[in-house]
Parts: sequence; structure tokens; C-alpha cells
Amino acid sequence: MRMLETGRPAEDEVDELELLTRPGREDELRTFLLLLHPADIAELFDELDHSARVQVLRNLQPERAAEMLAELDPDAQEAIFSAVQPELIAPVVHQMESDDAADLLQELDKQTAQQVLENLPDDYAADVSRLLRYDPSTAGGLMQTELAHVPISCTVGAALDAVRAAADDVDIISVFVIDDGGRYAGNVALQDLVLSKASRPLEEVMEPKVVEVGPDVDQEEVARIFDHYSLVELAVVDGKGRLLGRITADDVHEVLVEEAEEDLLKLAGTAAESDVIYSDKVFSIVGQRLPWLGSTFMAGLFASWILNSASVVFQTAVILLMFVPVITGMSGNVGTQSAMIMIQGMASGHVDPDNLAKTIVKDITVCIIMALTCGVAATLIVGAWRADWPLGLCVGVALALSMTTASVLGSTEPALLKRFGIDPAVAAGPLITSINDISGVLIYTGVAVFFLDYLGGV
Amino acid sequence: MRMLETGRPAEDEVDELELLTRPGREDELRTFLLLLHPADIAELFDELDHSARVQVLRNLQPERAAEMLAELDPDAQEAIFSAVQPELIAPVVHQMESDDAADLLQELDKQTAQQVLENLPDDYAADVSRLLRYDPSTAGGLMQTELAHVPISCTVGAALDAVRAAADDVDIISVFVIDDGGRYAGNVALQDLVLSKASRPLEEVMEPKVVEVGPDVDQEEVARIFDHYSLVELAVVDGKGRLLGRITADDVHEVLVEEAEEDLLKLAGTAAESDVIYSDKVFSIVGQRLPWLGSTFMAGLFASWILNSASVVFQTAVILLMFVPVITGMSGNVGTQSAMIMIQGMASGHVDPDNLAKTIVKDITVCIIMALTCGVAATLIVGAWRADWPLGLCVGVALALSMTTASVLGSTEPALLKRFGIDPAVAAGPLITSINDISGVLIYTGVAVFFLDYLGGV
Repeated sequence: MRMLETGRPAEDEVDELELLTRPGREDELRTFLLLLHPADIAELFDELDHSARVQVLRNLQPERAAEMLAELDPDAQEAIFSAVQPELIAPVVHQMESDDAADLLQELDKQTAQQVLENLPDDYAADVSRLLRYDPSTAGGLMQTELAHVPISCTVGAALDAVRAAADDVDIISVFVIDDGGRYAGNVALQDLVLSKASRPLEEVMEPKVVEVGPDVDQEEVARIFDHYSLVELAVVDGKGRLLGRITADDVHEVLVEEAEEDLLKLAGTAAESDVIYSDKVFSIVGQRLPWLGSTFMAGLFASWILNSASVVFQTAVILLMFVPVITGMSGNVGTQSAMIMIQGMASGHVDPDNLAKTIVKDITVCIIMALTCGVAATLIVGAWRADWPLGLCVGVALALSMTTASVLGSTEPALLKRFGIDPAVAAGPLITSINDISGVLIYTGVAVFFLDYLGGV
Repeated sequence: MRMLETGRPAEDEVDELELLTRPGREDELRTFLLLLHPADIAELFDELDHSARVQVLRNLQPERAAEMLAELDPDAQEAIFSAVQPELIAPVVHQMESDDAADLLQELDKQTAQQVLENLPDDYAADVSRLLRYDPSTAGGLMQTELAHVPISCTVGAALDAVRAAADDVDIISVFVIDDGGRYAGNVALQDLVLSKASRPLEEVMEPKVVEVGPDVDQEEVARIFDHYSLVELAVVDGKGRLLGRITADDVHEVLVEEAEEDLLKLAGTAAESDVIYSDKVFSIVGQRLPWLGSTFMAGLFASWILNSASVVFQTAVILLMFVPVITGMSGNVGTQSAMIMIQGMASGHVDPDNLAKTIVKDITVCIIMALTCGVAATLIVGAWRADWPLGLCVGVALALSMTTASVLGSTEPALLKRFGIDPAVAAGPLITSINDISGVLIYTGVAVFFLDYLGGV
């Protein structure tokens, strides 16, 4: 398990900072803050009371305050904005990269966000407002507008001048190159500019573009592209190929962490809205979790109905009903294992259309071996325990058959769902798991009827 | 769900490349390959037969062949190395970054790896051998030895010269600065070098180090540090603070993807060794999956034993046994939901020691509301269906109580396990889920006994 624990700051560091925020100790406070990384200040900040927070904000240089604000969690950001006047906070926001500023304003209520925007310089406010219009989970939502770009016709020296002109508020890894039609054409790494003679034409030094994305491309696709080409930055362009902004590797890190979190929550049957799940809105949380339990509920009742339909059989051999938990538990579990392995294999590339059939056959082979092992074990354990070998055999056969069926369902469902355009992760969720449970109960009932009617056993 | 599909190349592109690998078409082949990114060549390469692969390797420049090799999956890498002579492949390996070369040699059998090492230049072979000694899941296993470093006493101009000297085989984002004692002291971004006068002392321009790691630090901690400080590279130092290498952001991407995959497989009860799970070793896969099913098996049998112990009760009311699937399904599901929410919250920082108690209380409140809803629904549905209201009430009360118990177990277990140093993800795995199932059956049996003995109902 990832244990990305938020390293909590030492108590004494918080106490020291608190003391320094008292009136008259501003010089010491500034020195103390200077020695810390903004990300570490953010962690201390979280532990402070309101007046101490304001004092810290006042005594941080705007660039560092901006970096710190970007690191705070949304609740703390909101608390600051609702307590401090927009005129005071706007200069700090102005120091943020445009994507961080947009992310932050997204979290605020409409009115506060509007007030902050009104206190920002016009062109910066326009950039941020434009970013706010993109869905946060798309390339447009991830990109920042700050970048250095030069026409393809210029020289290495002119490109370096562009870096120098832009560099005050932009972190530059490479310079974006624009062709004569105004379209994005490629990049030149800062390193290659430094290595080349100033008079050399840029065209000889640049790397032509390999890939670019539109602003509506989903963030998962963006992460995939970064991974595939081992990128450090990626150009976002409009329909005519004109540069809109760039996405950097650290934004993609956040996507990967967020997507992994949503996957886990979705598999647990919690509809994947982590802001709601970790909020204080009890009834909204119920609204997210209950529907998933509903499918399990219906499946459970359906299983009960199947057992009840065969009640003539079970009335004569009540003991058979006692073993229902073994059957449902095992078939549910083996089906989930198979589904998860296929889903994850499809996502990671271990399983692709070329080896899909082979992988399914292999999975079913593995499950048949496990099913036989468990079936034999159940026969021996139940037979010996109840001194009733027909009963043992009935449970063992039913267990082996239902586990095999569950594995066939579990390993084929993800690919089938995907073919119909449904997220295969659903296959490991409560809905499909319930279907596998029902198949287990059905098979068990069938085997029980067979043993009692045809073999006269149990 | 992350859909990081390995975009499969178009059929016709593969066919075209295959044609170009025939004898006498080398010039066309080289032109074709020049237009593709090495990552895309790797995808086409995967589809080729052996002789075509050799022909492609021969007609790629070594740097690009190296990039392509690093992108291939381990099976394809192994196939190449077992078929091509070490003397031919060594020049390509030499073009790889040392961490990629070490990753690749790790995948080969010992003898082949040794042969490749012997054909590499001595100092490079020594670097790679050193990297091979680190555990692949630590900072040492992630780092590369290629970097540019300068003494703190030099000027901006001298640092730029160091970049120029190193740059041919190293991608440089910043230059590492070494203090007078030979210890890592900080970095200076390439951008800041470009911006500053050549005569300026480096010490005025550099950023003092914020963080560094030892080679044994776990890769998850490395990922956390990258995330916390929004890093693009991180220094790895020995016990005396001397620079051993650097970790770059793209290596950390791979860690995040890999860890997410292992988390999912672990939750599915498959002991998290993805190389085994996706291999062809059927019995090894059984060995990884079966133990987890074993705990479910034991728990199921234990539940059967509980039901059997109360068989006097259930003999008189067989119908009660028919509803066992509803009880186990629902309590298992709600417990897993609660556990997953806590585990994920603890991993992502939504849940920390400050709000742990509050979060648990909130979770149990949510679950009580859901339990009451489901309990009332079960009473009404079962009561109406069987026209037996005491039966309905018995099932409803048992369901509500077992769901509440499961949520208490599910939401408290992760924090308890963590306190005892056990990975909290275990709480959502088969072992603990089984315990929750058993508690459901126990409560159900208790409620049934109470209804029959004390109320004389059902």
C-alpha cells in the first residue's frame, strides 16, 4: 500500500512558529520562514490559528507565499480566502502559476473567486479565467499558460534572449518553437541552447514535435502519453495547432495519485467522489455508498429466493444450507481475484488483444486447479466432521463447480465490458460480484438437487 | 479506472516496416525509422519476427536503439539478448542511462548479463554493476549516476562549461553543487545559469539543498518526497553526504504506476507479485492466489460451524437459513467500503491522527443510517414476501445489527493494524473480510435465537 503519509511537523516547531507570530517578533519570524521550504511552511501553517496564519502570510515574500498556498489542502485554502481581504491575497495569487491559481479559485465559492479575479492584473486574470472554463480532469484543466516560445526562423541566441525575457516568473525546461503558420512545431531543450553557438539557426537544434494534445483530452490519456514518451512537458494546442499552454510532469504526478485513489474507492463501491467521501456531509456520503449496497442487497435476496425455491430439497437436508457461506464466500473471492488480475493486466499492458484468449485460458486453468484443491479439501473436512461422506462430496463438488464458474465469469467479464464501452473496473465492483454470488448459489442448489434426487444421498 | 492501454500500432505500419526489413532496402528502412519516436519503434518492434528485429536494431543509431530497448517490455528485452551476440548489443546498452541499463540487466539471466557487462567500457560497467547491487525498489535502484556537478567555489561560467562537458550523454535540468568537504550542497537550475553573468560566484545563484535521500530509502518514500516538494530531480547521497546519483521525475512516474498496480492486486488477494501473476507459471500463480482463498475457506467453514451449532433453532425455522446470503453479503460489503475509505484516506492524507476519531465516528454514523435503511427494507420485503412479519423483523434486525458491527470493524481496523505496524491495506483483503463475514453470521444466529426463544416468533 502506498503510505503517502502527510508527514506531520514536530510539535516544537509548531510551538516555536506560534511564538514568533506574536507582535514585535517580525524579524525573527521572517528569518525562521526563510530557512523553510514553502511545502514545509504549508504543513506548519495547517496547525496554526487564524491570527498566526495571517501573520505568517504577511511576512512571507509573495512568491513563497504563493508556493505555500498552492500546497495547502483545499479546506485550508478556503479558510484563508474567507478570512483575508481579496485585495491582500490577490498579489500572492498573482505569483502562482496560472494552473495552480485556477485550481485554487475552483475551490472557492463563486463570489470570493470573482473578487480575487477583479483584484488581479487584467491579462493574468484573463489567462486564469480561460483556464477555469476547462474541465479540471482534462488537458486544459492541467495546463499552465506560462511558457517561453519563439518563432522557428530565429537563432539560438534569440531563443536564449526569449528565455531571459520570460524567466522571471516561468520555470523553463525547454523553449517551444512556433512555425511560420503560428502552429506549434517542436521544442528546444535549454541544455541544447546552451551547447550551441548563438548564431546557429534554431531549426538545426530543435527537436520536431512528437506529440501534442487538445485541451479536451482526458487526464488519464495525458498521463499515458507522458509515460509512453517519457516526457517532462507536453504542449496543449487548439484545433488549428496553435499553442494554448503546457503540462508539466508534476501536474501528471498529481493525476496518477488521484486516479489511483479513485480506482480504489470505486472498487470498494463508493462511486469515486473523494471530495464527498471525506467531507462532513453525512447524507451525501450515504447517497454515494447506499446505491452500491443496493445491488448486493438485491442479489442476496435473489439468492435467498433460489434457496427457497428448492426448499423441498433443503427441508430434507437442512445441513446443506449451513454450507452456503462457504460457497458464496469462495466463489465471490475467486471471481474477484480473476477479474482484478484481468482489469489490472489490461490497464498495465500485461494483457492485450494478442494474448487475451491465452490469458483467459491460463486463468481458468489456474482456477480449476484451485477449485479441485478446495473441492477435495471440502469433501474431506465436511465428510470427516459430519461423518457423512455423501454430504462432504456434495459440498466439495458444488464448491469446485461454483469456483470454476466464478473464475470463467471473472476472467471474461472485464474484456466483455470493455468491448461494450463500459469501464472494466465495474467487473470487480459490487454489482458483478453479486452476480457471481448468485451463480454460486444456483450451482449449489443444482448440485444438492442432483445428489438428493438422483443419488438419493446426503 | 486508469485505462493506460498500450496503444497498439496500426496493422499497415507493422506491415510496411516488415517489408522494409528485407535485404537491400536499408536506406528506406533508416529513413522510416528516423521519422518515428523510439517509444513508437518499440511498439512496432514487439510485433516483428526475429530476423526483422535484428535488421531494425542494426539500422538504428545506437542512442535511439538504446531508448527503444529501454521502452520494450522485459520479455522482448530478454528475447533480443538471448538471440543477439553480446558484442553487438553492448554498444547499444552503453548508450542507455545507467539506471535503465541496470533495470535491463536485472531482467536477463546471470550469464547473459555478465557477458554484456564484460563488453561494456570499464567505468560504465562499474557504474552499472554498482547500481545492480541496490534493491530495485529503493532510491539506489531508481537513481542514475549520470549528472553534472561542480564545486561550490566556482563561477556561473565554469558551471556552464561543466554542462557543456557533460552534456553529450546526460540530460541536464540542473547542475549539482558540491561543498568544500565533498558533500552535496544544492542545485543551480540551468535556467538560472543562463540568466546570470558568467563571472558571478555560483554560491549567489544556487538553491541550497532542501532534501536528499540515502540509497536505501524505499521508493514509496521517494515518491512522497517528489510530491511534497514538487521536485524534478532528487539527490541520492551516501552516509557522509557525498553524491551517489540522482533520481528523475520519469522514474518516479513508473513507481507510482507500479505501486498502484500492486495495491490493487494485493486487495484482490494475490500477494502482489505482478511478474508472477502475469507469467506462464501456472503452479506459481496458484501458489500466490490459493493461500488467500484459504482464509476465506476457513472463515466459511467456521460460519457453517456456527450455523450448525444453533441447528436446533434453525431446524425449527429452516427459512431463516435461506437469508444467510443477504446477511453475509451486506456485512462483508459495508465493512469493505468502510475499510477502503479509511485506508485510502490515511494514504492520501484526508485522514490523519488529528481527525481519526472524528472520521471513525462519522463513518459509523453513515453506516448506521444505511443499516437502518436496509433493515427496514429487509423487514418490509421479507415480511411481505413470506407473509410472515416476525420473520421479516428478525431478518431486518439481524441485518441492521450485522451491518453496524461490520462498519465498526471496517473503520477501526486500518488504524489499529497500522498502530501494530501492519500494512492497513490488509484490512480490505480476504483475511479480515472473512472475519467480518463471521461476525455477520454470529449476529444473525444470535438474533434468530433471541426471536425464537424469547419472542417465540418466526
